[in-house]
Amino acid sequence: MADRALDAALMARAIRLAWRGQYSAHPNPRVGCVLAHGEQVVGEGWHERAGEAHAEVRALADAGERARDATAYVTLEPCRHHGRTPPCTDALVEAGVARVVVAMTDPNPQVAGGGIERLEAAGIPVTCGVLDVEARRLNDGFVTRMTTGRPRVRVKVAASLDGRTAMASGESQWVTGAAARSDVQRLRAMSGAIITGAGTVLADDPSLTVRPEQANFPACASQPPGQPLRVILDRQFRTPSDAQVITTGPVLIVGDHTQESSDAARRLQDSGAQVLGVDTRHASGMLAAVLAELGRRDVNDVLVEAGPTVAGAFVEVAQVDEFWLYQAPVFLGSQGRPVVELPIERMADKVSWTVLDRRQVGADQRLILTPRQHNEL
Amino acid sequence: MADRALDAALMARAIRLAWRGQYSAHPNPRVGCVLAHGEQVVGEGWHERAGEAHAEVRALADAGERARDATAYVTLEPCRHHGRTPPCTDALVEAGVARVVVAMTDPNPQVAGGGIERLEAAGIPVTCGVLDVEARRLNDGFVTRMTTGRPRVRVKVAASLDGRTAMASGESQWVTGAAARSDVQRLRAMSGAIITGAGTVLADDPSLTVRPEQANFPACASQPPGQPLRVILDRQFRTPSDAQVITTGPVLIVGDHTQESSDAARRLQDSGAQVLGVDTRHASGMLAAVLAELGRRDVNDVLVEAGPTVAGAFVEVAQVDEFWLYQAPVFLGSQGRPVVELPIERMADKVSWTVLDRRQVGADQRLILTPRQHNEL
Repeated sequence: MADRALDAALMARAIRLAWRGQYSAHPNPRVGCVLAHGEQVVGEGWHERAGEAHAEVRALADAGERARDATAYVTLEPCRHHGRTPPCTDALVEAGVARVVVAMTDPNPQVAGGGIERLEAAGIPVTCGVLDVEARRLNDGFVTRMTTGRPRVRVKVAASLDGRTAMASGESQWVTGAAARSDVQRLRAMSGAIITGAGTVLADDPSLTVRPEQANFPACASQPPGQPLRVILDRQFRTPSDAQVITTGPVLIVGDHTQESSDAARRLQDSGAQVLGVDTRHASGMLAAVLAELGRRDVNDVLVEAGPTVAGAFVEVAQVDEFWLYQAPVFLGSQGRPVVELPIERMADKVSWTVLDRRQVGADQRLILTPRQHNEL
Repeated sequence: MADRALDAALMARAIRLAWRGQYSAHPNPRVGCVLAHGEQVVGEGWHERAGEAHAEVRALADAGERARDATAYVTLEPCRHHGRTPPCTDALVEAGVARVVVAMTDPNPQVAGGGIERLEAAGIPVTCGVLDVEARRLNDGFVTRMTTGRPRVRVKVAASLDGRTAMASGESQWVTGAAARSDVQRLRAMSGAIITGAGTVLADDPSLTVRPEQANFPACASQPPGQPLRVILDRQFRTPSDAQVITTGPVLIVGDHTQESSDAARRLQDSGAQVLGVDTRHASGMLAAVLAELGRRDVNDVLVEAGPTVAGAFVEVAQVDEFWLYQAPVFLGSQGRPVVELPIERMADKVSWTVLDRRQVGADQRLILTPRQHNEL
């Protein structure tokens, strides 16, 4: 096999390993590592959980003495800093690897390239950029956070073909089928936080937790490290202290900063909820403040599972990276609730999407939409 | 090649020939005919236009003397009656064909089987049912008319992913792209009549004609015989006499029977429009009366291109055989007009569809929906 084809094949294997951490690695990036002599793989590793060994260290342990003179394939530039674990660059140097192939550099602009420099300074040749697009996809949320300070934002809505999410009464069980709802469980499990509105909590009292028995995780993937942070947009701190989001795990209630010391806010804190006050006068400022806070809390991916008002606010202020639209092959009628509350008066102001992915999920269709760039056709 | 496989292959060829008449044969059925000795095709024909030669006669003329002892493959049972042309059964007998293979019997219950009987009485063996499903698809509208007395009803709507067809102001140019609009031209050309509402005529003054320069017909297909009958649902005969639907070809204005002799109705007749009075008090009765009239006028396929009220009425009274939904990858916002006006209050009353076909048309997606049967999963 030609060297470049061999590099790509073994990097592809490292990327597949990295995906095993898709539900468990966050807030760390998903990383995979393969050690090989030519075509012969001698060690494999992937990063499973924050605080545990990095992919390179696991692959080196797997290879043992066979790591010497091997080529290391790593989906992300090895770290050179002391975090919760020692630097992976040092471990690779000490193990005597002959060459390192890296898919992409560290997305943190402060440290990008440092790991490669360290390896090269130790006399180890490094090839960078092999399957970089595929490796980037592993960590789109992490990259977004490293480069912008905020998480990647996904909005999920289940609707009918005539664009309705519920009856006028609010009745909505179920628009989509069991397969789509299981898919949403996996989407939650990939997310460090779930955002909803107080209206949804008051109306439906959802828990917004990951239920592994419904999620149908692939056997090779590890379980999530815990429940995602549930974030409730609740200007007046109206969330009841016995709401399921409060009793089932970590929750952050975001209200107006003038209400932060109110009795309602205190009562929620006493129930175990975290409380945050922000300026809620404008949706754009409020959402930006919430996303900045989630960035500070190391959330790579946030999922918005809310009613049409909150979902529409994210679309309107252009804070959506991906819109996941599950479409059921039904009509719910013209009195039903809209996909998003979005005031548009002229065709010229329509919101245009690029369809990143479209697939059948049970009887429903799942579309992943991303905002269309102006330079696209 | 085994006999059955050979029969299927040559019938498939006859079906492809029949499709050449997809825009031109109506109100007659689309029919194709192949004459062959074994694998060797000696004659081909298809029905192009009402009043012109039937497929069998054209194939016999194409074959000449070689028709003797040939096998004839016909997509529809040959006629035995004198219509605008002499019976095809007689022509096949006289030409001395050795065997006839028929895809499906005549859908008219009055004459079904008669052509086959006539051939068998003349000593010609007949095989029936080869590719019957594919042959049925050629003539779903014709079969519907023959068995129920009314045309097949298709409703076409162009909408956004959030289920809106226009701005609140009515602005709607254009929701979908040029490829989808060209596709609609071909859909119109397959239809004997187009139904719309007076509201659409008053608001947009559409012509609802087939424009061959936009339709992009396949080179092998013949042009439509003329413009489809435009049918305007117009209780009070409000359609202006200079409306484009009136000045561009045949038009039928359907109003309330109590208004049939009104000045407004007379004025429309003077402008060249046909006028029909029906009982318009209930949508179900009105639509049934319109469809029965179109059946009497030999319309096989009718296309509803109307606003949400008329389209919704067809859905509500369950008079839709196919709903053609063109979806553009945009959001038009929650103030926009709905796909259909359809009052539904409980999830249990939702309208469920089976997706017959889903395909990309330019940047848009085209779904062909058919009402879900209760015994489907």
